[in-house]
Amino acid sequence: MQISHIEHVGIAVTSLEEAIPFYENLLGFKCYAVEEVEDQHVKTAFFKVGQTKIELLEATAPESAIAKFIEKNGGRGGIQHIAFCVQDGVANALGEIQEKGGRVIDAQPRRGAEGLDIAFLHPKTSAGTLVELCEHPEK
Amino acid sequence: MQISHIEHVGIAVTSLEEAIPFYENLLGFKCYAVEEVEDQHVKTAFFKVGQTKIELLEATAPESAIAKFIEKNGGRGGIQHIAFCVQDGVANALGEIQEKGGRVIDAQPRRGAEGLDIAFLHPKTSAGTLVELCEHPEK
Repeated sequence: MQISHIEHVGIAVTSLEEAIPFYENLLGFKCYAVEEVEDQHVKTAFFKVGQTKIELLEATAPESAIAKFIEKNGGRGGIQHIAFCVQDGVANALGEIQEKGGRVIDAQPRRGAEGLDIAFLHPKTSAGTLVELCEHPEK
Repeated sequence: MQISHIEHVGIAVTSLEEAIPFYENLLGFKCYAVEEVEDQHVKTAFFKVGQTKIELLEATAPESAIAKFIEKNGGRGGIQHIAFCVQDGVANALGEIQEKGGRVIDAQPRRGAEGLDIAFLHPKTSAGTLVELCEHPEK
């Protein structure tokens, strides 16, 4: 598997409205997109920092993985996942991980925010950290 | 404040020995350094991914912030902090944050892993996320 860079870091927040001003006013980033991903029950806000994006995630429903993360985290936000950009297809990468004995949450890539092909690995495979693999499908 | 890129992502793990093989064997990264930072009671392992480093952190004492993070996280590892590389000095950046009403954990830069000048912001300022600012002092 070839990974070129960290595509984004996913940060759970209790409120985009409260979190965005920290990134814009204190760190000097610019929020370039706010997008709702309905099947994941989240609203997202994006910032670009070098090669990588910061993806803020606010839950829009209690069954959202973000709502559950915040609940487990004592009601506070925090860094929920890290997403690596693969170079040879998310499906190939998932196959390679599983061949080597790794566990995955998504056996097939699905469509994520910004139209990316995405898949999550199982945290039991990745030492507790939620790891996403992703790639632009038009590549 | 000028931030150029994400310098590293700090990931708490219960055991470096168990976590390193995921990053090396399953993701294909190479661990280029293992370092103990005594005053933070951690042992660290570094990987480079594009512009950014992955810093795995294992606690070496119960009073370590990493030990406390893992305890709060139900005994599991996870992503503990994100570190942005500033271009005009960590001390200047801390001054700017405080002038704008932000709270900091470190009022002055201190020496972190890899000889960086580092300082942490207070999570109450950064919507729950532990944010580090850092810079190579010889710049």
